[in-house]
Order: sequence, then C-alpha cells, then structure tokens
Amino acid sequence: MAKAELLLLAVVSTLSVLPFSSLAVYQDFCIADLAASATPGGYPCKPAKDVTADDFHYGGLGSPGTALKPFKISLGSAIVTTFPGLNGLGISAARMVMVPGGATPLHSHPGGTELIYVVEGSVVSGFISAALNRVYTKTLYAGDLMYSHGNATAVTLSSFSSDNPGLQILDFALFANDLPTEVVNKVTTLDELQVIKLKALFGGRG
Amino acid sequence: MAKAELLLLAVVSTLSVLPFSSLAVYQDFCIADLAASATPGGYPCKPAKDVTADDFHYGGLGSPGTALKPFKISLGSAIVTTFPGLNGLGISAARMVMVPGGATPLHSHPGGTELIYVVEGSVVSGFISAALNRVYTKTLYAGDLMYSHGNATAVTLSSFSSDNPGLQILDFALFANDLPTEVVNKVTTLDELQVIKLKALFGGRG
Amino acid sequence: MAKAELLLLAVVSTLSVLPFSSLAVYQDFCIADLAASATPGGYPCKPAKDVTADDFHYGGLGSPGTALKPFKISLGSAIVTTFPGLNGLGISAARMVMVPGGATPLHSHPGGTELIYVVEGSVVSGFISAALNRVYTKTLYAGDLMYSHGNATAVTLSSFSSDNPGLQILDFALFANDLPTEVVNKVTTLDELQVIKLKALFGGRG
Amino acid sequence: MAKAELLLLAVVSTLSVLPFSSLAVYQDFCIADLAASATPGGYPCKPAKDVTADDFHYGGLGSPGTALKPFKISLGSAIVTTFPGLNGLGISAARMVMVPGGATPLHSHPGGTELIYVVEGSVVSGFISAALNRVYTKTLYAGDLMYSHGNATAVTLSSFSSDNPGLQILDFALFANDLPTEVVNKVTTLDELQVIKLKALFGGRG
Amino acid sequence: MAKAELLLLAVVSTLSVLPFSSLAVYQDFCIADLAASATPGGYPCKPAKDVTADDFHYGGLGSPGTALKPFKISLGSAIVTTFPGLNGLGISAARMVMVPGGATPLHSHPGGTELIYVVEGSVVSGFISAALNRVYTKTLYAGDLMYSHGNATAVTLSSFSSDNPGLQILDFALFANDLPTEVVNKVTTLDELQVIKLKALFGGRG
Amino acid sequence: MAKAELLLLAVVSTLSVLPFSSLAVYQDFCIADLAASATPGGYPCKPAKDVTADDFHYGGLGSPGTALKPFKISLGSAIVTTFPGLNGLGISAARMVMVPGGATPLHSHPGGTELIYVVEGSVVSGFISAALNRVYTKTLYAGDLMYSHGNATAVTLSSFSSDNPGLQILDFALFANDLPTEVVNKVTTLDELQVIKLKALFGGRG
Repeated sequence: MAKAELLLLAVVSTLSVLPFSSLAVYQDFCIADLAASATPGGYPCKPAKDVTADDFHYGGLGSPGTALKPFKISLGSAIVTTFPGLNGLGISAARMVMVPGGATPLHSHPGGTELIYVVEGSVVSGFISAALNRVYTKTLYAGDLMYSHGNATAVTLSSFSSDNPGLQILDFALFANDLPTEVVNKVTTLDELQVIKLKALFGGRG
Repeated sequence: MAKAELLLLAVVSTLSVLPFSSLAVYQDFCIADLAASATPGGYPCKPAKDVTADDFHYGGLGSPGTALKPFKISLGSAIVTTFPGLNGLGISAARMVMVPGGATPLHSHPGGTELIYVVEGSVVSGFISAALNRVYTKTLYAGDLMYSHGNATAVTLSSFSSDNPGLQILDFALFANDLPTEVVNKVTTLDELQVIKLKALFGGRG
Repeated sequence: MAKAELLLLAVVSTLSVLPFSSLAVYQDFCIADLAASATPGGYPCKPAKDVTADDFHYGGLGSPGTALKPFKISLGSAIVTTFPGLNGLGISAARMVMVPGGATPLHSHPGGTELIYVVEGSVVSGFISAALNRVYTKTLYAGDLMYSHGNATAVTLSSFSSDNPGLQILDFALFANDLPTEVVNKVTTLDELQVIKLKALFGGRG
Repeated sequence: MAKAELLLLAVVSTLSVLPFSSLAVYQDFCIADLAASATPGGYPCKPAKDVTADDFHYGGLGSPGTALKPFKISLGSAIVTTFPGLNGLGISAARMVMVPGGATPLHSHPGGTELIYVVEGSVVSGFISAALNRVYTKTLYAGDLMYSHGNATAVTLSSFSSDNPGLQILDFALFANDLPTEVVNKVTTLDELQVIKLKALFGGRG
Repeated sequence: MAKAELLLLAVVSTLSVLPFSSLAVYQDFCIADLAASATPGGYPCKPAKDVTADDFHYGGLGSPGTALKPFKISLGSAIVTTFPGLNGLGISAARMVMVPGGATPLHSHPGGTELIYVVEGSVVSGFISAALNRVYTKTLYAGDLMYSHGNATAVTLSSFSSDNPGLQILDFALFANDLPTEVVNKVTTLDELQVIKLKALFGGRG
Repeated sequence: MAKAELLLLAVVSTLSVLPFSSLAVYQDFCIADLAASATPGGYPCKPAKDVTADDFHYGGLGSPGTALKPFKISLGSAIVTTFPGLNGLGISAARMVMVPGGATPLHSHPGGTELIYVVEGSVVSGFISAALNRVYTKTLYAGDLMYSHGNATAVTLSSFSSDNPGLQILDFALFANDLPTEVVNKVTTLDELQVIKLKALFGGRG
C-alpha cells in the first residue's frame, strides 16, 4: 500500500490542459503573457513559436497550498494567473485539503460554476439558492459550504467553467479590510460587538 | 491503510455541482428534463419546486465505467445526458481507468477544452496542434493521446468547458460504421487492406 | 411645481424595451411564455402574431415595490419573470426607494453587472472587490452596499446586463431559511448567539 | 420643493457601475486604458493597483449633453469611450432631454438592446420590427422613434446591453457625409431633390 | 461551354452544412422543429433518430428567389426558418441576382455580420460606418448598398454570422406599413409629399 | 460564352465584409493589427483613422490557392490571418478547386461550423456524427469528406462561423510531424508498416 500511497501523493501534482476546440481561441491555444495588460477577454498570447509542452502542464497542485486559518483547510488554485496555459479556455481547477474539524468558509465564485470531485475522505456540502433562498445539502461529500465528516483528512478537486472564476469569502470581505464597523452593521444587521470581534480575528480595521 | 483505501473507493463516486453565477441560468440552476426536446442552448428545466439536493449529485463515476476495447481503458462520463444537473452550466467531467499497457485512442472533443488531473498512477500525454501541426507531449502524466507509463493502473479525472463536450474517436469514426472502404481510402490515403482489417476489428461494414 | 411632481410620479412607472439587434434573438424579440418550461437560454417565445405594443412596456416600477424590512427600502424589479418582454435580451432594471436612515442589505447579483442611476436624493455606495478584497466607496451617491445620506428619500434606477440577474441578500441566505445554526457558525465564524438572534429577526429555523 | 428640485438636478449626474459577476472579467473589473489599442473584446485594462472608486463613477450625465439639431433633443452618453469603467461589462446608458415639439431621429443601435425609463415628462415611442415590418407604438412614453407629447420637457434614461451599443441615425448616415446623391437615390428611391435639400440641412456633400 | 453553363445553373442550388464543433450544440446538430415554440437560443431539436442527410442540405438557392421591386434584384435566403439544419449553428447564407440597372435597397442585418462573395458579374458595394458616419465603397464588387456595374447580370453569395441575421430594408420599414406620414416626417425630416409618394410606391398606409 | 467565363474568373477573386451589427465590436469593425500580440478574443485593432475601404476587401480567393497533394485539390482561405478585416466578426471563408479524381482529406474545423456552397461542378459530401458515429452523405454535392463526382472540375465556397475556424487534416496530424510511429500505432491501431509508408508520403519523421 505504501507505494500506492506514494504514487497518489506524487501524481496529484499533475494537471494538463488540452486546448482543442475552444470557443474563441486564435491559435488552438493562447498562453497568457502575464506581463502584458489583460483585456476583458483575457491576456495577450505568448508567441506560438515560444510555446513548449511545459506551457500545458501545471505542477502547483501537488503542494499543500495556502492555509486558510481558522478554517483548517488549505487551497491550491490553477487559474490563469498561476497557470497561464488556461488563458481564454474557460476552465480552471482548485485542490483543497481539509483536516478533521475543518470547514470551508462561506464563499462564492462570481465568475463560474464549480464542479467538485472528492478524491479522498468525505465531506458535507451544500449551497444556498439565490432564487429560492433554499439550502441544498448532501450528506458525506463535496460542496460550497463544506465541513469535514469523520476523522479522516478530505481532499477535493474542483473545476470551474472559467479560467478565472474569482473567489469571494464572506469573512474576508466583511472583516479583513477597512470597511467601517458601522457600515457592516447597517448592511448586515450584525451586532457591532460581533463585527469588532471578527475584525480582530481576520485583521480588519475601521 | 485498508480503511483509507476503502474511503478512497467510496468517495471517487462523488461529484457535485454548485451552480452559482452561471452565464445564462434562469433560476440559479436548470436541471435538464431529458424527456423533453433539447434546444441549441440545452434542455428545458425540470420545475424548480421538484428539485432536490440529489439533482446536484452524481454517483456514476464510482463504477469502473465503459470498457473501450482494444485500448485497455474504461471511461465514465458525467455530462448533461447522464448528470442532468449540469444542463446549461458549461462544465462536465469524465473519469478514466487505464491498466498497464493501455492507451487512450486518438480522439477529439469538438465542443470543449479538456483539463486533466491525474488522481493515481502516471501516464504520457500530449496533443497535436491544428494550427502548427506540432506534437506537444509531456512525460509521465495526463493527455489526449495517452498511454500508460509503468506497471500501475492509472486513474485520471478530466473536466470540460461544456456540459456536453462531445467525443469523436478516430477508429470508431473510420472503422465502426458503414463508411465505404473506398471512401476511407480516398479521404485518408490509408491502404484498403488496412481499412478492411480495422473494420473487422471495430465492427464496421462497407 | 405640483404638476411637475405629479408628472414625475406618473412617469416613473414607464419602462420600454426596444429589442433591436440583440444577440441571439430569433424574431427581433421573444416575449417569454412563462407558463412553458424555461431553458438555459430563456423561456420559449409567445407566438409573434399575438404580440402587441403592450408586451414591450412595463408599468410595475411605478408602485413603491416590495418593502425590505428592516432595511427601510422598497424595491421593484423588471426582470424576465415580471416583464416577459425582456426574455433573451440581456438587460433588466430595478427601482429602489430608500427613506432617511435606510440602507440596502449586503447582496450580490450572481448573473449580471449592475449600473446605478440616482433619480432623486443622495446615497453612499460602494462594493467589495473579490480579487483584491478592497472596498470602493463613493460619497453621496449610488452603490451596492448603499445607505441614505441626508434627510431626503432617495430613488435609484438600476440596470443589469442580464434579463434575470439574480439577487442574493446575505441576511436572507444565512438567517431566513433552515440552515442549521451550527453550520452557519462553522462557515462564517459568527457567534452562535448572534446567529440565533438574527434567525429570530429574519424568520429562519434550525 | 425648490430644494428637492435642486437635489434632482444635482443627482442626475450620478451613475455608478458595480462590476460583480460579469461574464469574462479578469479582475472583477477592467477599467479601459483608452490610449491603448482596442481588441474585439474591449480595451486593455488599467493596472488594478491604480484603480480608485472614481473609476466606477461617471458624472457626465448631469450636463444637458450634445444638442441634436433640428430634433430639439440633447443627448449624453455613458459608454466605454466616455466612462472607461464599463469596459467589458456589457452595459451602458444614455440620458436624453427633449423639449416640447422635439423628436428623436430614426436610429438604430447595432450592438445592443435598449431599455428606456422615463424620468420626467411623457413621450410617444415605438419601433419597427425587422422580422414583420410592423410598427409597435405606445402612447405617452418612451421609445426608439420618439417625440414629445404635451408641453413639458421630457427626460429619459436608456440602458443598453453592451458597453458600446453604437448609434446610427438615418439622417446623418444618408445626408451628413459624401455619399453621392445618385447613390442615395438608387438605394432608397428618395427623389434627388429631396436628397439635395436634406444634404444641405445636415451638411453633406456629393 | 453550354454544358459548363448548365452545370453552373444546376449546382448553385446546393448548400450543405457541416455542423462539427459548434458552440452550444447538444448532439453535433439540432435540426429545428419549426412547429414548436422558438426560444431565445433557437428552436427545439427534431429527434436525432429522425435526422437524415437531407436535413443538412438546402436546394432553395437554385431558383431565382423573391423579386424585390423596384430594385431589379431577386433574393433567396437560407436561414433557420427556411433551412432548419442551421438551427443554433451561427451561420446562414443568401444568394442575390441583380440585372443591369439594379441596386440593393439600403438595409441592415441587425443580427449578424455579412460576408459577400461575387459569383458572377460585378457590382459596386459599400457601407456606412455607424461610429464614424463615413462611407466605405469599393469599385466593381459586392457590398451592402450595392448596384450593378456594367451590362451583365451579377450574382452574389452572402454568408452571415448568425442563423437568423434579420433583414431590415429602409424603404419597407418607412413606407410599407401603417407608420403615420406625420411621424415619418418628424423622425426623418423627409418632406411629407416625398413620404406620401413613396408610401404609394411601397404600399404603405397612414 | 467566353466573356461570361472570363467574368466568372475575374469576379471569384472578390470577397467583402460588411461589419454591421457584430457582437462585440467596438468601432463597427476592428481591422486586425497582425504585428501585435493576439488575445483570446482576437487581435488588437488598427487605428480607425487609418482604415480604408480596402481593409474590407480580400482578393486572394481569385488565385488557385495552395495545392494539397496527393488529394488533387487546391485551397484558398480568407481567415483573420490572411484577411485582417474579419477580426472579431465571427465569419470567414475558403474556396476549393477540385479536379476530376480529387478528394478532400478527412479533416475537422475545431473552431467553427462549415457551410458549403457549390459554385461549379458537383461533388459527393458527408460527415461523421460524433454523437451517433453515423455517416451522413449526400450524392452530387458538397461536404466534409468530399470527392469529385463526374469529369468536371468542381469549385466550392465554404463559410465558417468563426474568423479563425482552424483546420486539422488527419493525414498531416498523424504522418507529417515527429509523432513516433509507435505512438501512432498505439492510439490508432494502425499497423506500423502502414504508418511508416504514410510518414514517407507526407514527410513525417519518427
């Protein structure tokens, strides 16, 4: 089993994009030149003659990713700004590792649909419908407001219908910047003391 | 380890879609009513009041999937016709299991970009650029014309930037229908004997 | 002045759509048949022979709209489900009336960009960038997290780049349904007592 | 009332864009760098670090706008070339002031649907369907071929489903450039004397 | 030569669509069921099992098409309502025959770009830019406001970037319906006598 | 008849684009600056002040085009890289001349639908459905796997729903680059001897 485990760890670092048949691609692919100014449709392309097979491969999902405290998860993202080969192709991915007791913070991806595949472990997931304000949850597996189920670490792979789906985490938006406490109170009805406490936790001011 | 393995087997059957923020969605989501006529933009929606959390979950990727002989791979697909919750959301997924000595047949997805994540094992992958007629391959991991590397089974998860990306396998298109041998010869320059041999292998006529 | 005022009240009920040149329209326009099943691209069209000039006019923004307590605002929406003439045209509108001391609840429109025009009065507005987690506010006028400025009632007209932009209000999503208090606590870090208090205010359970 | 009137005049100069959730936006927003070359998808973006709240605000609809003689209307436009914050967001706006006896010239917006909101006064509006060659008019309020109704000035606000909807006014296209009189006659069947008279009115040659 | 001519006449009736790789197609193709209600994205699809090779072929461009008097042209159109195989595929075509002295009426296609190929003869063509109000013409060949050049009949084939590009002819819009003469005068500045004369020519009322 | 023939030869060199009403165009048109870096949405635009009527005209389809041996056809393409006026307009064209005994190689256009118009002669055409793996052919006229019918030269004009539809010819992809023979064998099941023979014919290595 050890070898299989080792292989598992080894290979989760592999992500490749096959850019056949994309919608508006001008040379089958358009590797982002991140040093140039973006446009509403994506980044300018690196010259096709300089493109190699490496431009279609991203190894960054193999490391644990960025820890999101206090949620006990870590997150790695393969989006156009980290994996320039995705530029204009309308797809991206993220890998999450969640230890027992962890939870994903309430969040949304303004630019894309999320499709979650549970690689290892189990989670509870769900989302809140904007149209009906109804909660849809599914016991045991992946989701948008997700927390660990059982005592094993869970690993998920998410795909998005955009090469830059965005990510807005509620706590960071409300409590990790200089939005005045009084305004947070007005637009959320949260008590001011609650706001002050969480601003201290997430490092916000005002 | 056994327990972890068990969990691994259990959870690879889990795929969830979180339909926040899609492009043209009319009720956050539009679960396909597959019994109704499709339109160019997707299937009509099941009434929102009948939708449950199960509509956002697909367990079909847990079974080995359909075997594709003689390529030694098996394939499970979560596209709109198997997972109606994807309707109109511009994303889908497929899971492939490849035993040692296996290879994916040369193919294309006319409707979408493919993003491959290697869950287990290792593969050699690559694609042929239409614009430059150049081959891009990457040793060890995933790809479009993919064959196993080493003596372990490989498992990959592909995501697509479409909820129905299509799949056209060259051998099936040429040798598994009633396209006349003479026409195959004309449009591919393959020898007639070669065509006849492969028609026999793939079950074609003519 | 009275007459001018009267006219002002009278005409704010008028909204017309001129469906020239839309993207995917099949008969210049496609008045939604709301009784039929929607598709990901919109509702089926009412027969063109039954369409009259009234189908391009919506008077519903003239009434004060729905009151959103406890925020001291009222809201009228001209979206495809209330104004079927917008079907497939990628545009919609909403009118908000805010009395002194009012504020719009923190919210997002998952399906479209919002463009705000202040018809009367003044407001403070702003939004929180998902990419940079930075707050952009503008003194005196319109915005996403908006509260009244001064002692006059404010009236705004919003347009959206979608005929059904969606609306998700944070307080309603968290506190007005059956999402368990424990889950809200986990995914937002809000104190359980705070959650219980606001569930009571907004009518949620669990 | 005077104060209210003053406020009204003051605030019609306010237009804000809240760029949440747009289709292809790469950083929530992409403020146009108008000095750079446009692309088919929009202008390159100003660096995100240089963006301020002012980039999301446009005050230019407060002035009367450009007078369109001899139609007795004036027009202000908030499109990407005047309000760079709209770049790539698929929405724009225009404000029209029409004195008694005025009329909007026959025109079309090749790039977008128009949604009209009557802020003040009343107008007669309508449009001509391309598919059915049928005229749809609505007494009293806004429209594409619009003329004043009654003896009060009318003010309308139009929104468009594009950040650069285009504007082609028939009289300017036919009579305000160097299109030869003989060609105008051939393609419109208008009498040559009529063409010559209107070329003199609109400043055309040939 | 006679045989070649005959062949030429015979084959101009042939138009085929190869629906590989379209954007949102759900089954490679979606033959329109014109008896069902359209949606903003197109017509519902005929069941795939009933589709034959004939559904991808349209012979209607072989006949001279509809005469447009008094312009001395005739026009055949292969759009989704005449050639249901184009449904959702974003392309269509039209064939025009123009005898010496003919001209195309000033028109626009609200839903698509036009690409013109001159099959036979020669024409003068051009268009008027909306952005710059500038006329672009090209001696000898095809265009939007097109008239015959020389004494031979001209034949053109136009393609459009839409399966239903629309067609609005100025003279028909102004003079072939019940738009009141007084309104035409107001919105175009055309003299009332001119309007009355052309309403008589094109069959309009009012 | 000679004169008519001459005219025919003369005019097949004419192709014009009328860029009214395109989807995302920022100045009615956006002539590609091919020297600048492309973006996923197209090339940056040439300054509008430098645009002339010539930018909307392409004469390159008049010459016989590039010969594709051993298929006995020649091909001319008007796509964005040869006809910069098409940039961002979602349409392009190609002209094919096929002598008796010729055939088009099996190919696909990953980026667009193809619509074929037979200008002269007759051909047999068809395509293979990806969804159903079924062959659709039509006797006498145009198609994707096309070969000449009868003893006259055939000329076809194809339009595409993209300004850069791509072209991937099977034989070139498999036999005209350095894709190893062993890999071709694995992913296509073609015999190695067959692969070696065709690599020699098409100039491939490996």
